[in-house]
Amino acid sequence: MFIDILRNKGAYPNARCFHGHNGPKPITVWCSNDYLAMGQHPAVIAAMEGALHDVGAGSGGTRNIGGNTHFHIELENELADLHGKQGALLFTSGYVSNDATLSTLAKILPNCVIFSDELNHASMIAGIRNSGAEKRIWRHNDVAHLEELLAAEDPNVPKLIAFESVYSMDGDVAPIHAICDLADKYNALTYIDEVHAVGMYGARGGGISERDEAAHRIDIIEGTLGKAFGVMGGYITADSKIIDVIRSYAPGFIFTTSLSPVLVAGVLASVKHLKSSSAERDAQQAAAAMLKQKFRDAGLPVMDTTTHIVPLMVGDPVRAKKISDILLAEYGVYVQPINFPTVPRGTERLRFTPGPAHTEAMMAELTEALLEIWDRLELQLKQAA
Amino acid sequence: MFIDILRNKGAYPNARCFHGHNGPKPITVWCSNDYLAMGQHPAVIAAMEGALHDVGAGSGGTRNIGGNTHFHIELENELADLHGKQGALLFTSGYVSNDATLSTLAKILPNCVIFSDELNHASMIAGIRNSGAEKRIWRHNDVAHLEELLAAEDPNVPKLIAFESVYSMDGDVAPIHAICDLADKYNALTYIDEVHAVGMYGARGGGISERDEAAHRIDIIEGTLGKAFGVMGGYITADSKIIDVIRSYAPGFIFTTSLSPVLVAGVLASVKHLKSSSAERDAQQAAAAMLKQKFRDAGLPVMDTTTHIVPLMVGDPVRAKKISDILLAEYGVYVQPINFPTVPRGTERLRFTPGPAHTEAMMAELTEALLEIWDRLELQLKQAA
Repeated sequence: MFIDILRNKGAYPNARCFHGHNGPKPITVWCSNDYLAMGQHPAVIAAMEGALHDVGAGSGGTRNIGGNTHFHIELENELADLHGKQGALLFTSGYVSNDATLSTLAKILPNCVIFSDELNHASMIAGIRNSGAEKRIWRHNDVAHLEELLAAEDPNVPKLIAFESVYSMDGDVAPIHAICDLADKYNALTYIDEVHAVGMYGARGGGISERDEAAHRIDIIEGTLGKAFGVMGGYITADSKIIDVIRSYAPGFIFTTSLSPVLVAGVLASVKHLKSSSAERDAQQAAAAMLKQKFRDAGLPVMDTTTHIVPLMVGDPVRAKKISDILLAEYGVYVQPINFPTVPRGTERLRFTPGPAHTEAMMAELTEALLEIWDRLELQLKQAA
Repeated sequence: MFIDILRNKGAYPNARCFHGHNGPKPITVWCSNDYLAMGQHPAVIAAMEGALHDVGAGSGGTRNIGGNTHFHIELENELADLHGKQGALLFTSGYVSNDATLSTLAKILPNCVIFSDELNHASMIAGIRNSGAEKRIWRHNDVAHLEELLAAEDPNVPKLIAFESVYSMDGDVAPIHAICDLADKYNALTYIDEVHAVGMYGARGGGISERDEAAHRIDIIEGTLGKAFGVMGGYITADSKIIDVIRSYAPGFIFTTSLSPVLVAGVLASVKHLKSSSAERDAQQAAAAMLKQKFRDAGLPVMDTTTHIVPLMVGDPVRAKKISDILLAEYGVYVQPINFPTVPRGTERLRFTPGPAHTEAMMAELTEALLEIWDRLELQLKQAA
């Protein structure tokens, strides 16, 4: 059963939980991907309310037949600008952007071989599989292995390297420049999934590729509108030629009702805000650093990450669920256990996503709760740092 | 280029068009799939505004990790009830419901053979292809051909018959009972796509399967929340066992941010309203009948349909586009030409979707405009009826 909640707009991470109770019970959400709490930002809410009253609930059609609103066009321009690309294309979700783009691209490039990081997201794997193209899996973030595989291939076949910037479950970051160096050397296209980075990294929220000044080296940047931007939907940005190809040939783009204009208006406000404001990014980084430090100080097995993602390794699915259940039932803390197939067996964990709205008091309470549960379940603590 | 519009909430089918102009120009929309104008219904708008202020813009996560709101659960219960099934499952779009369900189901049933109507939607074709299962294409709505194919198959392999109730471009209807008779005889599962029927047919809007009292004979009913229900999203309903399988194994369901609670709250209001009100359905049928009659009386080549869809056959992509361009530029009438691959070459058409908000005066103006254009382009009229 999925945990049944309603978040409290304006008071997030506070929420109501309907799980195992007759009425709603107050909880604190620690596992949301609304990383910057933009889902409750006044500018986003106002834009959505405005669109709702101006144009109504849904788009009423596909992009080609009646469902292309002025908001869609504005947002595509805004996203292209965010990543310094010629064009952008909206999809109903990040999942669909990966699936539709990768499967279409690899079908169109004759005999294309796709080089895929072994920890790529399920939606990239789906797109690669659905393309029918040959694929080579390289060991996670291992550029030596990637080069080995690239070098073994016929120099004349089209090649596409697909990877993520921030890996969501380990919170580690891809060596973008090193990968682009290989792409240059072996004449490969590059495709980066920035869903756990857009809005959060780079001076304007353009992701790790902006932070590392590598966006111009990447052919296709894919992102989501449902995590740091706080709403829903997905997109790609690229040069005009690639955008035109995907727009013209991807069934997952063509044959589907376009994003509700209400959502698009909200995202537009969110992207614009995060382009000019770094306060949310700074507060998120501060919150993540503080939570990691508190976990380390308490001897809790926090995984080393260089990002905003704070995973606590448990290494066992039953215990991970047990900890999560106690946190919810006794402490009003909601954090979902992460199990196979989302992570490999034996690496089950709790994944915390502190953001600008999580206070130091919440973190102290959480750490206390975890220490009590660790003791109750006779789990091991590390030597306190 | 897609036609760039904003609809006028409360005054639909009136809208603003930004196409080829410096500022917005007023138009009338004739090709929306917001069939019942529920996208501007006060109950839907109020529910969305309420949710926006109560819980915020997005869900913040997948259904399993933080993105399962109380609205999602309520809506799934409401949809299961609508179709008389044990359970329902929401997806981010109708496209994704078809792709995810068909591909997962056929992977799970060992050696499954799928029998697919030749005019099935691109999303069903994608799901069937992505499943990797064997498929047999039966001629459109031809049950004799379907039986021939079923009879030729090994009686012991699992079989799935996939079809639509209302075919969106021809506006014709599948012989559901005859198909279910064959499913019984040859022990096949049945999957029906009701996206162009839910909300619009049956006493409670349960679709053609409700109208024809056949819902209990269908294993899986798939629908959309983005057409007659006026918002965005997709779903399936089925018995609990099938729902559990799709929920547990379909990557397109598991690994994606769930529908925004704002959308879900709007759909909930829409579905509830259309369960108890037939006024919108009756008005849509009256509008469709009136427009068909006006077209027939004028000698325009309207295709015979038994549904709310009113296609005007042109039979040539250049002319269809030309007519559409003149309508938009000179008459402020927006109707998209429908070309290959959405319809077969040589059957290019204009597809009108009159609804409760299209007045007789609008229809008279439209008919006059078409007659003038027919004359200008020297197209043939039929003998007036």
